Amino acid sequence: MQVIGFGAKKAGKDLVPMIFDRQNPRAGEVAIDITHCGVCHSDLHQVNDDWGNTVWPCIPGHEIVGTVTHVGEGVSKFSVGDTVGVGCMVNSCQECEQCRMGEEQYCTGPRSVTLTYNGPKKPDGTNTYGGYSTAIIVREEFVLAIPDKIDPRDAAPILCAGITTYQPMKYFGLKEGQVLGVAGIGGLGHMAIQIGKAMGAKVIALTTSKGKKPAAEVLGADEVIVMKDKDALEKHAKSMDLIVNTIPYKHDLNPYIALVKEKGTIAVVGNFLGFDDLDTATMVFNHVGVAGSLIGGIADTREVLEMCAEHDIRPVTELIEMRDIQKAFKRMKKEDVKFRHVIDMATLKNDLKAEKEAIKVDDPVRGVVTG
Amino acid sequence: MQVIGFGAKKAGKDLVPMIFDRQNPRAGEVAIDITHCGVCHSDLHQVNDDWGNTVWPCIPGHEIVGTVTHVGEGVSKFSVGDTVGVGCMVNSCQECEQCRMGEEQYCTGPRSVTLTYNGPKKPDGTNTYGGYSTAIIVREEFVLAIPDKIDPRDAAPILCAGITTYQPMKYFGLKEGQVLGVAGIGGLGHMAIQIGKAMGAKVIALTTSKGKKPAAEVLGADEVIVMKDKDALEKHAKSMDLIVNTIPYKHDLNPYIALVKEKGTIAVVGNFLGFDDLDTATMVFNHVGVAGSLIGGIADTREVLEMCAEHDIRPVTELIEMRDIQKAFKRMKKEDVKFRHVIDMATLKNDLKAEKEAIKVDDPVRGVVTG
Repeated sequence: MQVIGFGAKKAGKDLVPMIFDRQNPRAGEVAIDITHCGVCHSDLHQVNDDWGNTVWPCIPGHEIVGTVTHVGEGVSKFSVGDTVGVGCMVNSCQECEQCRMGEEQYCTGPRSVTLTYNGPKKPDGTNTYGGYSTAIIVREEFVLAIPDKIDPRDAAPILCAGITTYQPMKYFGLKEGQVLGVAGIGGLGHMAIQIGKAMGAKVIALTTSKGKKPAAEVLGADEVIVMKDKDALEKHAKSMDLIVNTIPYKHDLNPYIALVKEKGTIAVVGNFLGFDDLDTATMVFNHVGVAGSLIGGIADTREVLEMCAEHDIRPVTELIEMRDIQKAFKRMKKEDVKFRHVIDMATLKNDLKAEKEAIKVDDPVRGVVTG
Repeated sequence: MQVIGFGAKKAGKDLVPMIFDRQNPRAGEVAIDITHCGVCHSDLHQVNDDWGNTVWPCIPGHEIVGTVTHVGEGVSKFSVGDTVGVGCMVNSCQECEQCRMGEEQYCTGPRSVTLTYNGPKKPDGTNTYGGYSTAIIVREEFVLAIPDKIDPRDAAPILCAGITTYQPMKYFGLKEGQVLGVAGIGGLGHMAIQIGKAMGAKVIALTTSKGKKPAAEVLGADEVIVMKDKDALEKHAKSMDLIVNTIPYKHDLNPYIALVKEKGTIAVVGNFLGFDDLDTATMVFNHVGVAGSLIGGIADTREVLEMCAEHDIRPVTELIEMRDIQKAFKRMKKEDVKFRHVIDMATLKNDLKAEKEAIKVDDPVRGVVTG
């Protein structure tokens, strides 16, 4: 199946149209015509090779929603015409302890989990291409039914921003009445505020931009702390059971550590670039943990989709055209997005110039369908 | 009660004899003639003001064993002549959630826990003097019975080195058959190896000094990894359920992070001086946590004393004279201690020169006995 996508040939290059072939659905696989794809800060990091692990070309996109167009032999959960989603993962061994626990993102199989773009988590030289493209083929186990109540455009950001922030709240046992801090009020943070409220927590938004205060309040934050406000930081010292830290770059974590209650945790979900000068004295004195957390498993993604449907949790999205992706990246860099860009994939399908311009690139490799 | 101790007047100064008065036991308090006091790396940090929080003068010592000489009104658990111990804490509010859970070290009362030396955890200008002294008065709740099977000299290091390493193993749920890494094979680490084995874990000692390998094996380590050995690090990548990191200074944590299994934790118990360039990418990818952990509560200290008695766990100690404390500090700095210095307090009591030389210092403040 010929597919057009937007990708970068190497770091620092603009995304341009690319053409490639996705092998037709095999047994157990589902073909999806992509209607929407969210733009995640990770897409920008990966395209810029900020993490030093990008496999080229890089066709990003892991907040994918679309319509089933074909199903392979034996597919039982989906039918042609269904509205479905695909998040950050497209394959895993399905057999290891982590997969059996529903935590495919930590799969300990030979290649670990295969990410929707950039290939397997344990690199093996192969590549996958994400949702900045017209269609995708994914094994059934990684396809998610989109609840009727959620508009496809709104569903897309739940598949990364939603699950990535929900998972640590579930894992670290956030309880009704507890205090949740949400650090970074962007694509992930604005979902975290709403999800935290739905879980019954008191939610405190933590932002460096005073300008984000009104929006955080509209989203449901009980309080907003601007991180320069020393009095507020003092007042809230050691008060938070959990902080979900969505900030996607290196920053001073110490003011956040001081906000955590005894035996509380900061879940770091978006920063792969490290911390300097970590205040271990406060961590030791108050038994504060700093833990990494990577997206979330398929079962938990189903849960958060249902939770969003039930509690009317919706991302705040701005629909963009595929051709405007560079503008979107620039605005993201300036933190000028409220709060999630979603690409209207019709703008790529209807872009006849794109097909003509498209560079032929190597076909992606999906790996075997096991289980 | 007049007491002689060894303390420093300010940072960088040698410890010298000091004389002061400990108020006689009030209701609920126990007076202890100190026979032994362990020398902890924290003592050196505190005397050097490495953490910037030292209250002067500083008379260290929080691995105290001795004999009960008086009991205050209402004391029911101890009698004159009992062999008892005092660890890092001498008082707390006894009423807050943390105290009720038996985690007095995280007391959220007005001054938090009062440390055996250096005053309350939340500084209020008052000071306490530790076990580098001839006697101490402590409220009953913070006095520990020393099991008959344990020699007083051997009991001392259990009260900090033992509990500090046992507590995270208990808190993070170390199970039989799991893999425990012990980073830093010194006073704390050599206890951690033995305690980990008693808990049924496979214990892997992690050291930067090849020379410590034989001793770690004698102590019970199933394997020893010298941290320069890249092949060993590669082989053990993502294999450890828990690492108890006892290293008491800033170091590169990233090679340890790479050793932790999915959803595992590194408990940092001795480094108050921070980490730089923390590898959050690996932490996020593998859901690795880095958590601070401060000593342990009184109930857990009782548990670890019983465990040491039952499993014949003993520190490896070297008895020193009080006058040799500066030499001991120097050797500690060079990591030339196998594995714990214990001061024979008879050497202070019999040192007639010490009393003559002793500088009169302000009396320590014990705070109220509540509960």
